[in-house]
Amino acid sequence: MREVLSKAGIGEEASHAAFVGLDEVEGEDGSFNYRGSIPQEKALRPEVILAYEINGEPLPREHGFPLRVVAPGFIGAGSVKWLSGVTLRDVPSDNPCQAREYKLFPPGVTAETVDYSEGLMLGELQVDAAICEPEEGEALDAGPVSMRGYAVAGGGRSVEWVDVSSDGGRTWVHADLQEGAGEFWAWSLWEAHLEIGSGEHRIVARALDSSAGTQPVTAEEVWNFKGYANNSWHGVGMNVR
Amino acid sequence: MREVLSKAGIGEEASHAAFVGLDEVEGEDGSFNYRGSIPQEKALRPEVILAYEINGEPLPREHGFPLRVVAPGFIGAGSVKWLSGVTLRDVPSDNPCQAREYKLFPPGVTAETVDYSEGLMLGELQVDAAICEPEEGEALDAGPVSMRGYAVAGGGRSVEWVDVSSDGGRTWVHADLQEGAGEFWAWSLWEAHLEIGSGEHRIVARALDSSAGTQPVTAEEVWNFKGYANNSWHGVGMNVR
Repeated sequence: MREVLSKAGIGEEASHAAFVGLDEVEGEDGSFNYRGSIPQEKALRPEVILAYEINGEPLPREHGFPLRVVAPGFIGAGSVKWLSGVTLRDVPSDNPCQAREYKLFPPGVTAETVDYSEGLMLGELQVDAAICEPEEGEALDAGPVSMRGYAVAGGGRSVEWVDVSSDGGRTWVHADLQEGAGEFWAWSLWEAHLEIGSGEHRIVARALDSSAGTQPVTAEEVWNFKGYANNSWHGVGMNVR
Repeated sequence: MREVLSKAGIGEEASHAAFVGLDEVEGEDGSFNYRGSIPQEKALRPEVILAYEINGEPLPREHGFPLRVVAPGFIGAGSVKWLSGVTLRDVPSDNPCQAREYKLFPPGVTAETVDYSEGLMLGELQVDAAICEPEEGEALDAGPVSMRGYAVAGGGRSVEWVDVSSDGGRTWVHADLQEGAGEFWAWSLWEAHLEIGSGEHRIVARALDSSAGTQPVTAEEVWNFKGYANNSWHGVGMNVR
């Protein structure tokens, strides 16, 4: 990415790297190509790449063949697929997807009162964690229960640790992060072991990132009418015999 | 700062800028100079400066005369005062203050079980907001109440908005940010207006940063035995007549 941007002319004035995709979006005034931008500072970081292969094979069509952007730690909208152009500009993309749709609004704003010229253009992600095992509603025997999942950080930050709780966050057990977790901007896989008695339980997981950022307890705390940026604790209910 | 680091030899291997202060810390094995480091990537950002003046006057002694580091968005320990040396190194400072004291531990760790070789070395701050007016316990008349305070973001992030609530976070009123809020890495001053009836009330404030990061509801959620990195909602109780 850095090499391509150098040819496009990195400068102090050009502060956003903008990408054009070959896919067309149907808008109110006709169709247009999907476009999106990320800050130049982010685009020049080593984790941001132009990808033409995945695991040694050409990119599949659905992943953006023949070329796509991969901008980890940023909303997916910045990782433009079916790339046909890269430019540098002094303001973020004015594509309706970015300038209007992917925006966060304060909790007091509703679909009826929204002013789309306001709001925060979504960019860096917040830290998040998910439980993959056990699954919701799984029937388990009382005793040791193994949990597995992944965690991912946003911006240029890394996942530092993951904690799990079976009592709603009163006490926490530290998960083991897989060695090399989070390298190459992949998911950080984790595993934790809890001792659980019989009855109905809800287990939750949360991660902490390298800026000491963690996750909100409930989705209500981060409510916004478009439903974006909800990284509240992931919980799984289970029935222990 | 960038100019000084260039002379020290910025390289790919040297990834931390380390600072020596003239102040001495009393340790178990005698006294030592205070030292601390910040990542080279942070040190090269334009907001990180070497300060010898404040508001046109030489730095006061208590602020680090004759020279200090100012590293906004980072824990204060990185803004080393009474500076006597700058070096580049490939690992963070091993000064006991940084390598042992200013560390965050998971909620399950206590003063009795802590292993100081573990834990997260504190660095980037999280977003935070404080209410300055009204003051705790202030007696007010029912009707419109004006609130004032400040907010500050961490890392390279900015304060996007501040919301206030008088019903424990069920509904929120958007605060006005002072024009130019957050420029030059200063506090973002804000003002909000609530209509409050008579009785006991607790008003809270919270900020949102440019990575869509916000604040935890309670200190319990981010409990750690050293008491660090608590950016939970600031609340003020008041008695409205």
